[in-house]
Amino acid sequence: MNQAVILAGGHGKRMKADIPKPMLEILDVPMLGWVIRACENAEISNLCVITGYKAEHIEHYLNGKYETALQSERLGTGHAVMQAEKFLSKDTEGNTLILCGDAPFMDAETISNALELHTAQNNSVTVITAELDNPYGYGRIIRSETDGIAEIVEEKDASSAQKRIKEVNSGAYWFRTADLIELLSKLTPQNAQGEYYLTDTISIALSEGKRAGVYLTDNQDVILGANTRKDLLMLRENARQKVLMKHMENGVDFVCTDGVIIGTDVEIEAATVIQPGTILKGRTKIGSHCKIGPNCLIDNTVIGQHCKLNSVQAYDSVIEDNVKIGPFVHIRPNSHIKSGVKIGDFVEVKNSVVGEQTSIAHLTYVGDSDVGKKVNFGCGTVTVNYDGISKERCVIGDSCFIGCNTNLIAPVTLGNGVYTAAGSTITKDVPDYALAVERGQLKVKEGYSLRKLKTKLFPEKDKDRNNK
Amino acid sequence: MNQAVILAGGHGKRMKADIPKPMLEILDVPMLGWVIRACENAEISNLCVITGYKAEHIEHYLNGKYETALQSERLGTGHAVMQAEKFLSKDTEGNTLILCGDAPFMDAETISNALELHTAQNNSVTVITAELDNPYGYGRIIRSETDGIAEIVEEKDASSAQKRIKEVNSGAYWFRTADLIELLSKLTPQNAQGEYYLTDTISIALSEGKRAGVYLTDNQDVILGANTRKDLLMLRENARQKVLMKHMENGVDFVCTDGVIIGTDVEIEAATVIQPGTILKGRTKIGSHCKIGPNCLIDNTVIGQHCKLNSVQAYDSVIEDNVKIGPFVHIRPNSHIKSGVKIGDFVEVKNSVVGEQTSIAHLTYVGDSDVGKKVNFGCGTVTVNYDGISKERCVIGDSCFIGCNTNLIAPVTLGNGVYTAAGSTITKDVPDYALAVERGQLKVKEGYSLRKLKTKLFPEKDKDRNNK
Amino acid sequence: MNQAVILAGGHGKRMKADIPKPMLEILDVPMLGWVIRACENAEISNLCVITGYKAEHIEHYLNGKYETALQSERLGTGHAVMQAEKFLSKDTEGNTLILCGDAPFMDAETISNALELHTAQNNSVTVITAELDNPYGYGRIIRSETDGIAEIVEEKDASSAQKRIKEVNSGAYWFRTADLIELLSKLTPQNAQGEYYLTDTISIALSEGKRAGVYLTDNQDVILGANTRKDLLMLRENARQKVLMKHMENGVDFVCTDGVIIGTDVEIEAATVIQPGTILKGRTKIGSHCKIGPNCLIDNTVIGQHCKLNSVQAYDSVIEDNVKIGPFVHIRPNSHIKSGVKIGDFVEVKNSVVGEQTSIAHLTYVGDSDVGKKVNFGCGTVTVNYDGISKERCVIGDSCFIGCNTNLIAPVTLGNGVYTAAGSTITKDVPDYALAVERGQLKVKEGYSLRKLKTKLFPEKDKDRNNK
Repeated sequence: MNQAVILAGGHGKRMKADIPKPMLEILDVPMLGWVIRACENAEISNLCVITGYKAEHIEHYLNGKYETALQSERLGTGHAVMQAEKFLSKDTEGNTLILCGDAPFMDAETISNALELHTAQNNSVTVITAELDNPYGYGRIIRSETDGIAEIVEEKDASSAQKRIKEVNSGAYWFRTADLIELLSKLTPQNAQGEYYLTDTISIALSEGKRAGVYLTDNQDVILGANTRKDLLMLRENARQKVLMKHMENGVDFVCTDGVIIGTDVEIEAATVIQPGTILKGRTKIGSHCKIGPNCLIDNTVIGQHCKLNSVQAYDSVIEDNVKIGPFVHIRPNSHIKSGVKIGDFVEVKNSVVGEQTSIAHLTYVGDSDVGKKVNFGCGTVTVNYDGISKERCVIGDSCFIGCNTNLIAPVTLGNGVYTAAGSTITKDVPDYALAVERGQLKVKEGYSLRKLKTKLFPEKDKDRNNK
Repeated sequence: MNQAVILAGGHGKRMKADIPKPMLEILDVPMLGWVIRACENAEISNLCVITGYKAEHIEHYLNGKYETALQSERLGTGHAVMQAEKFLSKDTEGNTLILCGDAPFMDAETISNALELHTAQNNSVTVITAELDNPYGYGRIIRSETDGIAEIVEEKDASSAQKRIKEVNSGAYWFRTADLIELLSKLTPQNAQGEYYLTDTISIALSEGKRAGVYLTDNQDVILGANTRKDLLMLRENARQKVLMKHMENGVDFVCTDGVIIGTDVEIEAATVIQPGTILKGRTKIGSHCKIGPNCLIDNTVIGQHCKLNSVQAYDSVIEDNVKIGPFVHIRPNSHIKSGVKIGDFVEVKNSVVGEQTSIAHLTYVGDSDVGKKVNFGCGTVTVNYDGISKERCVIGDSCFIGCNTNLIAPVTLGNGVYTAAGSTITKDVPDYALAVERGQLKVKEGYSLRKLKTKLFPEKDKDRNNK
Repeated sequence: MNQAVILAGGHGKRMKADIPKPMLEILDVPMLGWVIRACENAEISNLCVITGYKAEHIEHYLNGKYETALQSERLGTGHAVMQAEKFLSKDTEGNTLILCGDAPFMDAETISNALELHTAQNNSVTVITAELDNPYGYGRIIRSETDGIAEIVEEKDASSAQKRIKEVNSGAYWFRTADLIELLSKLTPQNAQGEYYLTDTISIALSEGKRAGVYLTDNQDVILGANTRKDLLMLRENARQKVLMKHMENGVDFVCTDGVIIGTDVEIEAATVIQPGTILKGRTKIGSHCKIGPNCLIDNTVIGQHCKLNSVQAYDSVIEDNVKIGPFVHIRPNSHIKSGVKIGDFVEVKNSVVGEQTSIAHLTYVGDSDVGKKVNFGCGTVTVNYDGISKERCVIGDSCFIGCNTNLIAPVTLGNGVYTAAGSTITKDVPDYALAVERGQLKVKEGYSLRKLKTKLFPEKDKDRNNK
């Protein structure tokens, strides 16, 4: 069976990170996750991840899904792969892919095509390479006469003619598994650093008459990794632009992409407009003819067609068609906003169902509630869902009119067509078409402001009067 | 009379748009609108727009202002212009400009200068051209010995020498109207696509001994069009940067232009600072020494001098001098905010007048209200302008002090200097200097929290007790 | 003693600014402030600023800290330095640095190294220079045989060979003070503009057998100045990117830097993530492992570790560890948010202490208050700290539960464990563990909505009924 070993033991000291470098994220997915996804998409599902620096972060991320092996000392890439010996020995029939856990843009097509060439050419090892306009710093590929590989020359060892070679080593290889095990056993740390270099397997293989091949991929980005936060930012920008381009090809309309970040799993239908400052994350899906932004943050939320969201943050919710929300609205998890709803400014909805064509215009909190159709919420309405100990639900029937600054004390049920008076606190159920009002008597005290002003400005006088 | 025919029948399949391509917007104006504006600015007001794909969108946009002609089959640019035959026949004395409805950056000066040259040289047709550093893909202009045009050679037909020519066809032409009608009648679809090409009119004209001239414009952008959403984004970026540059030349100060989008009709006076994430639209005018942003969205609103708006959205309103608003404020249409007003956070104002030096500090909704000078709104104040059936107004006199969480039930009038107690619902008019208070008695139940906790934690005990 | 004269009299007409050009800001600091800071960092603390256009702005900015001299006529750079004659005469022993107040990127290291060379070479004058890839427009440096300076040739006077010289004059010079005084006295306005050019001092010095040296700095940016708003934007972008790079080197994580602006005095610890649209100003300090953004504006605020701020504006406050705030929150000056606090959406905190693990979930204003630990604020709570005349404080004990839409009328004190009922207005102190409730009786009027609808829809009928 074909399988992969992913090297993920690195630290990234120059980044001053306290997590393994492959755990640094690009579009909310760790670089290691990108590499694993490429394997999965290429149908390589038998993986061993080599951990090292702060291995617990990777163990936690993998959550037992894939095998790991700890490289407790840092003695080079060859040494890292040696840690997978037990993994490799389990099945020596097929081929093993070696990938860097911090080179996130390896793709499934490159992996599959390289394997095809690897097996077709009957290679012991096949190096995945790319051609760069500026190959500075990378190991150059010296091709053999039979178009296999003759040598990989590092920058510092390269002649000036070799430095002009544009084909470079990606650090990813296919090995015949049995050969890999044998070659690893022959590696020695005979170099200035005293490390075991995986690249030395090539010359050993060649010296034993084995064939070492080359797969040159079109995807130059397989080369990209990050040693600094600046590099990492460039990887993120690369990924960000690729996702934006994909959506443009799908007919999504961008006004200006400044501050627009879209996760790799987000789906958007054609003719939807995304405005600046908008971040779309998780498994968000957006229907056609929507207008999203500016400054929306939508996470893991399904949005229908013809919706307008302006300065909205929404999480783990469902928003149906023809819904208009914003500006300055917070939709918290487990909310279901049905068709034709209008939500205005300074509104929070949480863990609630809001029925068709209901209107929540301003300064309102709807939490843990089941709201019917065509309800009108007055400004300042609060569903009081928490008494300090437990959370309860409010149920509001169709066509209710909730007065301004109303408190609905859960658990409470309002029937259909209920009207609550502004400023009321509703503590018990209200039947259909009833008015609920809780209000004291309005008293008007004439001349009050003048007296108050006098009292404040001349407190001594006032005190005198009180003493009398 | 001079007139123009604008070709606007295209679809833009690669964009996956379901509206005509010329209806796609740049800075909120359809590309067709940009082209029409260039004509109007050049004082060409007799226009015929050739429609095709989803013609109803263009009809709706033009709203009868300009003539249209439907090209029901897509048989080439020549065929498109043929649809304007009736329009052209009405006045054959002057000249006719042919423009692409999806090349938005044609400008009035180019149109006028090209016409001047066209008539001065007594040309049958004058091609508007531009020189590009990278002319790849465009039809190259082969000049005649007399500096007119000899031929337009398409990319695929060009020799390598011709490919090096940098002068290209913009797709815009001035024709002597009578000659255009005659030339169109001689077009044939003798080509691989079986289409009528407007460019063929040039060779026909030349073969008949007519003169075909060239007007080379300085404005390279006349060439720009869009076949993909990526192209469209580039047009938008081009327009965005040109508008920003215009304002910088006028003395407007930009801290960082990320996410800043300014419409073409917006006016801003010198020494005003625009911060990132700010979108200015419609007929917005901003006076000098303002600070707008970050993250403002101002649409069709007139703002005076020395104002500060921070994270404000404002629509169709007037804001006078020395007003400070934000962060997180929504000014809805038909609001008039007078000089020296301060509006704090989480405030909505709608269809209201707010008098000089009034303060609305936080979490307040002022809708359908006429508010005097030096009024102080407490936090949580709501003008209750809607009873579910009709909207009424609140009138608030000068120097009123509105207590926190007050509801003002419209229609209601507060005199000058009125004081309302926190938490009151004001249902009737209050005379000058009076206090209005609606409040129950405050009861304090000692030890409540301890009992409540016990009840919740040991409900069985409680039930037992209740049963006794 | 060594000292400096800074030329800050310019206007910047092309910018249409009504303040002196050196007062235009880069990252919230006037360009003049950048130049002064470079001097201070190089331990040059005896400064004279030459003012001119609208001198009062500079006087106000310097606030008496440094000497100024007014150049009332604009007769050239030499004339500007002449205005410092009194300043120069006070101490003629040392050296004088001449700097342009609108070339903000001069750095302390360049100043110090140039001085070292100046004194080591025993120069009368030392010109600070830089090499530019594109030197167009700058005065070119013609070196002497002894590697000193032979001549400075302006663009318009340069031969084509001279135009290829990449070393240019920065406009900054070290002079032996005594020589400067003498050289200034020999300047004449014998040129087309009739101005006194400071550069003429070089040829005068050389003609008198004095030595004129050159210090070539690595920092090309010392050259940069601004004549237009576009130039100014480029300076700002330059400064913005340099600050971002500094933080990346310190291990700060940036997802996308669009709209991110960080002031020069801001400190951020490693492994904190800054998201797009975030502006950090003043003496803001942020601990490690925070997530700040998107769209935060943090000014002069100290933030601990492991905090999350999402769409928050915070000013002049302290936020301790493990605090989660946002979205849409405004923290106003003099707030102290203690560890573990959670603040949700549409909340303002002002001039208050919020105790450990307290929760303020939504639509609440906490002003002028001292809040204990583990307090829970219901939605719509308002601390009523202002009665129109004076501001008072609210004191809230530990573990209180404040009901929704509660008004706390300051001055008021709630003990520990107090529970207030939703919709209550609390006007007097409440002892530990008590419940405070102010509420009228809830009345339910059945069939109200139906009658109301009828009345509104058929007002005539209703009137009839009323008349009966």
